[in-house]
Amino acid sequence: AQDLLIFKGQIATAQVFPFPSVLSEEQEQFLRELVGPVNKFFEEVNDAAKNDALEKVEDHTMEGLKEMGAFGLQVPADLNGLGLSNTQYARLVEIVGGYDLGVGITLGAHQSIGFKGILLFGNPAQKEKYLPKLATGEHIAAFCLTEPASGSDAASIKTTAVQSPCGQYFTLNGSKIWISNGGLAEIFTVFAKTPMKDPKTGEMKDKITAFVVERSFGGVTSGPPEKKMGIKASNTAEVYFDNVRVPADCVLGEVGGGFKVAMNILNNGRFGMAAALSGTMKSSIAKAVDHAANRTQFGSKIHNYGVIQEKMARMTMLQYVTESMAYMISGNMDSGATEFQIEAAISKIFASEAAWNVTDECIQVMGGMGFMKDAGVERIMRDLRIFRIFEGTNDILRLFVALNGFQSAGNQLKGLQKALKNPLGNAGLLAGEITKRLNKQFHFSDEQFVLKRVADCAIDLYAMVVVLSRASRSLSQGHASAQYEKMLCETWCMEVRSSSQPDESRDSLYFFPADAFFDVTHIYKLEKYTVPRQLPIWYCQKCSIY
Amino acid sequence: AQDLLIFKGQIATAQVFPFPSVLSEEQEQFLRELVGPVNKFFEEVNDAAKNDALEKVEDHTMEGLKEMGAFGLQVPADLNGLGLSNTQYARLVEIVGGYDLGVGITLGAHQSIGFKGILLFGNPAQKEKYLPKLATGEHIAAFCLTEPASGSDAASIKTTAVQSPCGQYFTLNGSKIWISNGGLAEIFTVFAKTPMKDPKTGEMKDKITAFVVERSFGGVTSGPPEKKMGIKASNTAEVYFDNVRVPADCVLGEVGGGFKVAMNILNNGRFGMAAALSGTMKSSIAKAVDHAANRTQFGSKIHNYGVIQEKMARMTMLQYVTESMAYMISGNMDSGATEFQIEAAISKIFASEAAWNVTDECIQVMGGMGFMKDAGVERIMRDLRIFRIFEGTNDILRLFVALNGFQSAGNQLKGLQKALKNPLGNAGLLAGEITKRLNKQFHFSDEQFVLKRVADCAIDLYAMVVVLSRASRSLSQGHASAQYEKMLCETWCMEVRSSSQPDESRDSLYFFPADAFFDVTHIYKLEKYTVPRQLPIWYCQKCSIY
Repeated sequence: AQDLLIFKGQIATAQVFPFPSVLSEEQEQFLRELVGPVNKFFEEVNDAAKNDALEKVEDHTMEGLKEMGAFGLQVPADLNGLGLSNTQYARLVEIVGGYDLGVGITLGAHQSIGFKGILLFGNPAQKEKYLPKLATGEHIAAFCLTEPASGSDAASIKTTAVQSPCGQYFTLNGSKIWISNGGLAEIFTVFAKTPMKDPKTGEMKDKITAFVVERSFGGVTSGPPEKKMGIKASNTAEVYFDNVRVPADCVLGEVGGGFKVAMNILNNGRFGMAAALSGTMKSSIAKAVDHAANRTQFGSKIHNYGVIQEKMARMTMLQYVTESMAYMISGNMDSGATEFQIEAAISKIFASEAAWNVTDECIQVMGGMGFMKDAGVERIMRDLRIFRIFEGTNDILRLFVALNGFQSAGNQLKGLQKALKNPLGNAGLLAGEITKRLNKQFHFSDEQFVLKRVADCAIDLYAMVVVLSRASRSLSQGHASAQYEKMLCETWCMEVRSSSQPDESRDSLYFFPADAFFDVTHIYKLEKYTVPRQLPIWYCQKCSIY
Repeated sequence: AQDLLIFKGQIATAQVFPFPSVLSEEQEQFLRELVGPVNKFFEEVNDAAKNDALEKVEDHTMEGLKEMGAFGLQVPADLNGLGLSNTQYARLVEIVGGYDLGVGITLGAHQSIGFKGILLFGNPAQKEKYLPKLATGEHIAAFCLTEPASGSDAASIKTTAVQSPCGQYFTLNGSKIWISNGGLAEIFTVFAKTPMKDPKTGEMKDKITAFVVERSFGGVTSGPPEKKMGIKASNTAEVYFDNVRVPADCVLGEVGGGFKVAMNILNNGRFGMAAALSGTMKSSIAKAVDHAANRTQFGSKIHNYGVIQEKMARMTMLQYVTESMAYMISGNMDSGATEFQIEAAISKIFASEAAWNVTDECIQVMGGMGFMKDAGVERIMRDLRIFRIFEGTNDILRLFVALNGFQSAGNQLKGLQKALKNPLGNAGLLAGEITKRLNKQFHFSDEQFVLKRVADCAIDLYAMVVVLSRASRSLSQGHASAQYEKMLCETWCMEVRSSSQPDESRDSLYFFPADAFFDVTHIYKLEKYTVPRQLPIWYCQKCSIY
């Protein structure tokens, strides 16, 4: 965000060095007490393969999760929740992600987006009314933004909410698709267009408003569970609103302020995805290691072969980067940072792609075994495919990362600042804005091509900063794994350097005229960024990054 | 192979320029007559989604395929087959791959490997006896090599075949896993170890022999269908041989010559996989294009956006390369080439990875829709995962490609020539050989790391030669698509140049000491290879490849 100045060729180190250690002793203690039982529950009670085959989370598992408090991890304790910080939440979500992403989505759709709006924007009465039953899982929540004609382009939703003349209620009409928990939920956070008078011009304009909608209001129905490639244990359904009478006190935030509500919910939830997938990667790595250490071919355990070792090293490195990102962001959030949307977007992109690659390699290491249902990795792979798509496709998030970076970069883009205030905006607003302003200068399609590469560089560089920070902390605190972390970090930094170098042959690979390119050289200045000298940071000598 | 001298820094152009056009007018005519009905059959009769859900090919579909002659495509016409050449076969397999890989595996396991040994090595009596019923599909065939402890390391199989004192029969014992068609087949090509007297030393040694085994011999049983990630419509099962009495005239090829039989079957079948997957990619591209041309987001059809256009361009390029490889190899085979194992291995590696990437991008373009079963792409993705693993994992095949290349490269490796005569050998023999000879010079694990990169370069360069050849033919013959092909070819060549350049920072990314590396610079000499000047080949000006 404001502090991530990669695009200016420098890093504001205060937010990233040292690596955040935000938990109080009490919080650490509480977390330790939770980790054991949660792990045990997933080892002994939850059956991921069975949930997948049944296409639902088994009833007794749902009950067990509710009893553990898993449906209200961040709800304040006085409202029936566990009152966890973001870092504590990340740690538990990591466990869930390591065992069953179908359960993860059920829990995440509920609390990470389903009722997060009430936590973030709810007034005291709304919190009081809804959170206690949501925290216990008596009520399940769902987040209703996407529509058939409105995916990445969230601003184009067609669901309407028209206020009654008396002002007492809104009439809600429309339909939403691909809603996780859509068939189970009692409480919905729904985004709809409300006609509003522009205070300046007096004209009527549609603006998005967020509502808390109860199934019990009447007129709320849901379709059958969608048949999907993965995360089958989680319920995905269409949700229809047919003349639903929503009391005016169910407006979440301000009337017309729904877009901000939606984007804040999504931004707040993204670090959780990185945490969950960091756990998934750990599991995939464990399976691959277990297989490689026990499988003999050509007279030797296959973990002795270079091809396998290289895969393992790469898998481990990707997990380390993802984990570091997740806890860097949760730590910053716990310290009160409010500008983390770029970092959160980067962590979502990185984690979803890293987990995909790691699990794919796990299958490759396991060979034919990995393709069989029994091994349980093919399920993970199927589950993972959606993570690069939902809650902002990685393609759109890349544009968002790059465009936001350019916010401060050049004069010609200054006019975009307003559009960029609506973070993810869904990059739709941005796209529109940019198209308008720059159409004469560039072909927009050419520009997206460049933006993607800029985003890739930004992602790599942020990842580098994060692991430098974490490995530095481990070295300074003398962690047992410090030398190992240093090696992972070093490898990552060398890769980034290699892939982030300006390379004209690479940039001109496609069908675009050379003059359509931005001058992107300034982002490479990061290579010369200075890390705080007082930290016991090690320097990567070979590539002169320091 | 012998003609692929990439590793010597030159290309023997005779085999690759001009692009082979091997079909006679009569053959072309026959092929044209087949393509229509086969397409129609898959459009109207076969139901890929249903086959996937049922985990078998529907009965009426199997009957229809048999009636069309799809089970005996390359069996001579006088033995009930269609008598197709490799190029004709490739064209039909491409259609199958475009509709249903589950059916493709059923057909391929039958004729591409199941009874291919009889076609290639069978004596007249064996051909006469078995091929007629195999060609009509009255009997289904399966290829039985893999065992629980013997995957990539094919030479380590434990199944035994002991000859009776009278010499009249062999007693077969052992079990095979992951056998496609294993539960359906009546005829099995089985590889087993036979104790043999070494003619020189008089010592007894186990050597592999290939047998044709009928289920009706007794003692042949198969397990239940395996539960898999994909290609569910195809049957995969364990096959057990319990004191099976196999007549001596069922030996395929020579006693003790089974390894050669196995490797020749696999080498002969690989181009078919490239052809099938080229068809799969066409389908995925068609789905993505259809979606992108009809989906509106941000006020515009999404095919207008650069991010989407770049994906489409890349998908198309990968398909073009794969298709070109498949027909280059089938054409060379039809012209009587016998040394194509490296090319066949390259085509298998390239096709399986390209199809995976193309289908993955298709899902990404389709967004949430692509993750739903209804769209039919997630099934393709699940089907494709095994192609990088079976019939030689891509990892092992990469070692094979690189090691074979080094056969002629340096003095220190001369001793490997014998091992390399057993092509895929399964790289197992090679691995053993190399380990023995080079252990003092290099850590083998380090070496694999290098070999993988060498293989990647060889693959890219072979792909370049192939598309240069094909685009040249299209230009010289004035094909309607010639300019388009030129663009795809140009893009590919620029990418290859960019990624194949010696890059020390890249080569030293990992944990290996620099002195463990071969001098691999000689392979880059290809950049200066000369194509026959008399061809109307175009030159890629920007990157000075000519």
